[in-house]
Amino acid sequence: MSEFREDGAAAVEWVASYLERVGELPVLAQVKPGELSAQLPAVAPEQPEPFSAVLRDLDEVLLPAVTHWQSPRFFSYFAVTSSEPAILAELLAAALNQVALVWRASPASTELELRVADWVRQLLGLPDGWHGHIEDTASTSTLAALIAARHVTGRNVVVCSEHAHSSVEKDARMLGMELRKVPVDEALRMRVGGYDLDDVACVVATVGTTSFASVDPVRELAERAHAVGAWLHVDAAYAGSSWICEEERWSADGVELADSLVVNPHKWMLVPTDCSLVWTVRPDEWREAFTLTPEYLRTDDEAFSLADYGPPLGRRFRSLKLWAVLRCYGAEGLRAIQREHIRLAELFAGWIEESDDWELIAPQHLSLVVFRRVGSDEENERILERVNASGEIFINHTKLDGRYVLRLAIGNARTTEDDVRRAWDVLNREAER
Amino acid sequence: MSEFREDGAAAVEWVASYLERVGELPVLAQVKPGELSAQLPAVAPEQPEPFSAVLRDLDEVLLPAVTHWQSPRFFSYFAVTSSEPAILAELLAAALNQVALVWRASPASTELELRVADWVRQLLGLPDGWHGHIEDTASTSTLAALIAARHVTGRNVVVCSEHAHSSVEKDARMLGMELRKVPVDEALRMRVGGYDLDDVACVVATVGTTSFASVDPVRELAERAHAVGAWLHVDAAYAGSSWICEEERWSADGVELADSLVVNPHKWMLVPTDCSLVWTVRPDEWREAFTLTPEYLRTDDEAFSLADYGPPLGRRFRSLKLWAVLRCYGAEGLRAIQREHIRLAELFAGWIEESDDWELIAPQHLSLVVFRRVGSDEENERILERVNASGEIFINHTKLDGRYVLRLAIGNARTTEDDVRRAWDVLNREAER
Repeated sequence: MSEFREDGAAAVEWVASYLERVGELPVLAQVKPGELSAQLPAVAPEQPEPFSAVLRDLDEVLLPAVTHWQSPRFFSYFAVTSSEPAILAELLAAALNQVALVWRASPASTELELRVADWVRQLLGLPDGWHGHIEDTASTSTLAALIAARHVTGRNVVVCSEHAHSSVEKDARMLGMELRKVPVDEALRMRVGGYDLDDVACVVATVGTTSFASVDPVRELAERAHAVGAWLHVDAAYAGSSWICEEERWSADGVELADSLVVNPHKWMLVPTDCSLVWTVRPDEWREAFTLTPEYLRTDDEAFSLADYGPPLGRRFRSLKLWAVLRCYGAEGLRAIQREHIRLAELFAGWIEESDDWELIAPQHLSLVVFRRVGSDEENERILERVNASGEIFINHTKLDGRYVLRLAIGNARTTEDDVRRAWDVLNREAER
Repeated sequence: MSEFREDGAAAVEWVASYLERVGELPVLAQVKPGELSAQLPAVAPEQPEPFSAVLRDLDEVLLPAVTHWQSPRFFSYFAVTSSEPAILAELLAAALNQVALVWRASPASTELELRVADWVRQLLGLPDGWHGHIEDTASTSTLAALIAARHVTGRNVVVCSEHAHSSVEKDARMLGMELRKVPVDEALRMRVGGYDLDDVACVVATVGTTSFASVDPVRELAERAHAVGAWLHVDAAYAGSSWICEEERWSADGVELADSLVVNPHKWMLVPTDCSLVWTVRPDEWREAFTLTPEYLRTDDEAFSLADYGPPLGRRFRSLKLWAVLRCYGAEGLRAIQREHIRLAELFAGWIEESDDWELIAPQHLSLVVFRRVGSDEENERILERVNASGEIFINHTKLDGRYVLRLAIGNARTTEDDVRRAWDVLNREAER
């Protein structure tokens, strides 16, 4: 173990130093496709090398091809944070290497997962009695919800808004289910009427769409879905975490009526990818869709087997990092970070509104600002390319009614007001070049 | 970062000390369902606690509920190893927190994954040109293969052996596909004839079944499948890793005809869960089944997006740990460990054969021995319960033709001949009690 202690110290020092300097590195990797591959040996080594060689190549070969999700000026997709306690929890989880196939294969992983899922349920103000567990991503959580919905209803149609996440379409397609996309109103909310639900297995409502953080009318959608016996799944992968702040619970209206809900702690709860929480109010029917154990063969052990609630059999110890974050930040610590992100987004949105050269494109929700330069799509596209090529910030784009618009998503715990001001400066500088 | 350095040093020391003492801990967690839960607070903390509190509770509260997969006397399921370089690579991956949605979101994760998949392809002696990537588990890799098969064939039936892994049945069920199980011959190999394949989307052949490590006749199955336009998927999740040893490639016969293949480095290649490699010889059709990007909109970026080759959109940096293992052990190091495991299994099987009190149940393959005490099912069940309750070893059981049989699976890199001898002693002691 002396070698492990030495290598471990070097790895921890590498991480500490990386997190100290990550703000100085180009946010978006400044490499071309294939550039890294050209530097990687074509064949695996026959003979062992020391771990120091891995660390050296991580710096020299891999790092230029890393897009720095940990940078305080990463404003793309949904910005995220892998916090220090969670990073160390992943080290511990890898060392314990729990494979929670069934309860006895890892009572710790199984029972801690149920407990932290319940901790978060309470923090978000969700109803008592919901059954929560962890999948890898919202793609898988929603896939599981569609499988449960089809199992329960015997129907094969999924309905969601035209702004729902692409994973809903992909999930439906993988399952051989038919997807119907519903248009949105002026506030980018999924319309409640004007379409039929009679043959529908599942309505997917989104709280916090990827493009605009817009919020579907969950209550009305739930009532319509339930009136025809359809399942109501809520995708709050990003926005759901904000419900730990009471003042943000307006967007949770109606969620208590959902049959299932996904919220990703790896988005806005300081946990590294992957960690997607999914709850259901109908755990017995949900489980029936996945388990191969007939009821009469169930034992106490299997009653706790979380593999019976989702697609994969093998399950790693993901609850450990969520537990570490909840312990080391406390609910108050998480709220403070989210409130600061929302304040910074409002600040940035205010600059946009005050400017004649820029315009807000969608109502500003949470920590996401959607905007564009007054001018052509081509001009906005050029601005995006230039700011990302600068390496100083990384933002991305989306489209609204065919128009090219820019997104600035705040979500890294290291992001300060100075970083947001720098984003504003870089955008103006590159727009005026 | 001074706090992180301090906490990191404590975490590394915790891991080092854990790995030093893991052989002294009861292998199977000696707790009852709910015993851990009763000790976990019902609500999350409001105020932050230091990371040292997490480490303390890991020791005092969680550890008694941990089944020690890292123990050298873990002989259950398929025994696995999370090696030191891989543990540290998970630390690094968590710190970098790459979310490889598309190529540009992490060129490093995307290109390293393709490269290490190709390294392993070569080490296993698989054909040139196969496209490999990493999913979390064999459940997901096989799920993806069934989705691809249905997409390509337009058919909805899956065929596998009665001894195929339960994930095949679960995957088919989740997808709404019909599963047909085919009986095996005396050598526990899937029968090639006696059933129709005309409406079949996918034939799943298993190399190294979970119960017996038996090997289906891949070549004949591939020829039959292809004759009717069906997809041939090979599940070599456990046994495939052994092909790095040339003398074990007998079980790879015909695999070069497969349309897809899954091998799990988290089983017998020293990588912690989760890391499942899946290759396909038909990458364009495979990709069509998952991508939402029509061909005419593909860019160089998207061409590299591995999310287009499997269910989830979010992907973590799993290749880093596989890269670290391949570098730090070298192919020779991995071969030496596997050969020792196979030698130990043969040694144990020899003791069984020499004894009048025990009998081998299935032909001994690789590092798995399937056996039973001469006597009743109840007696064997009682032996299993007793040896596992001793905490000295952990084995599990399976059934063959309705008979209760015991499995001893060797796969932890720390397992020595002394550990296997101890297993034999414990089994005899508990049988004679």
